[in-house]
Amino acid sequence: MSAALKQKPVARQWTVAPATEGDWEGIWQIFHDVVQDGDTYSYDESTPEETARQVWVGAGKYGTGCQAFVVKDGEKIVGTYSLKRNHYGRGDHIANAGYMVHKDYRGQGVARSLCVHSLAEAKRQGCISMQFNYVVSTNTAAVEAWQSMGFTIIGVSPKSYRHKQHGLVDIYIMHRFLEDM
Amino acid sequence: MSAALKQKPVARQWTVAPATEGDWEGIWQIFHDVVQDGDTYSYDESTPEETARQVWVGAGKYGTGCQAFVVKDGEKIVGTYSLKRNHYGRGDHIANAGYMVHKDYRGQGVARSLCVHSLAEAKRQGCISMQFNYVVSTNTAAVEAWQSMGFTIIGVSPKSYRHKQHGLVDIYIMHRFLEDM
Repeated sequence: MSAALKQKPVARQWTVAPATEGDWEGIWQIFHDVVQDGDTYSYDESTPEETARQVWVGAGKYGTGCQAFVVKDGEKIVGTYSLKRNHYGRGDHIANAGYMVHKDYRGQGVARSLCVHSLAEAKRQGCISMQFNYVVSTNTAAVEAWQSMGFTIIGVSPKSYRHKQHGLVDIYIMHRFLEDM
Repeated sequence: MSAALKQKPVARQWTVAPATEGDWEGIWQIFHDVVQDGDTYSYDESTPEETARQVWVGAGKYGTGCQAFVVKDGEKIVGTYSLKRNHYGRGDHIANAGYMVHKDYRGQGVARSLCVHSLAEAKRQGCISMQFNYVVSTNTAAVEAWQSMGFTIIGVSPKSYRHKQHGLVDIYIMHRFLEDM
């Protein structure tokens, strides 16, 4: 048995980079596809491209700005995140991000690579923590992934999501500090 | 001792009505004054009027719209609230509101009148609950007022507010259902 065969499969390394204008089409394809499922984001199936662009790469809440980053497999965009400030002014030291992965590339470490990058980038920009305001409680894969990356559930908003299959389900608010990034 | 003297002071009744375009100046005066204190809202002292207008009566997050309401004492605007949806699409059945009272009219039941109106209005519009995402934990008067009106703390975001006097303090997320409104 060769050494190569004995090795465990290694999670592929993904490179995360700031999105450029030309990346929008690939981001939108992922965004549009993800919201069809109606089980992870508040944006519904009919979300127009212009709204998606606004929430992913636009001015953000109160004009604090959204910055998009992407992971590519060759020329193909396979994952993206959008980084913003969770609040304006006296709350602008807290980051917020959303993540989306192309359906053909899930379970391959893309989301984790995006998240690690976003935490480091948020810290670099001076934020002290990252908060997710809107983790659908039935999305256990996401909840567990974020927990494994140091996030804790700091709040539960009851019945705040109309899940396409399950009806009204809870929303989790998750948080982690960035000191150790 | 006359019957009149034995009576406890009765909280004044305030009438809440939708804001009109001409009300903006009075709203802005309260908004600008409130954010100077740096102890209740994330908008800081330098928040420009156009930003204030956007967050109070503008298109809102994702274009879901903000509606302002006012309380007047004669012609003078003494309190205002802004009602919006807490999320887009699959989360748009949850309401969110912000309240501000003129400094000369605090402790006179204006905030309570505004809140009662906002809960009824949110229910009328089809929302099942009201959520406050950003109650500064050191603002005990507000926390206790909301609790007395049926809100509970459903989450604590640590060190998420840069208080002008106290530095980094926690933010509470508060919530109540609207079934009984």
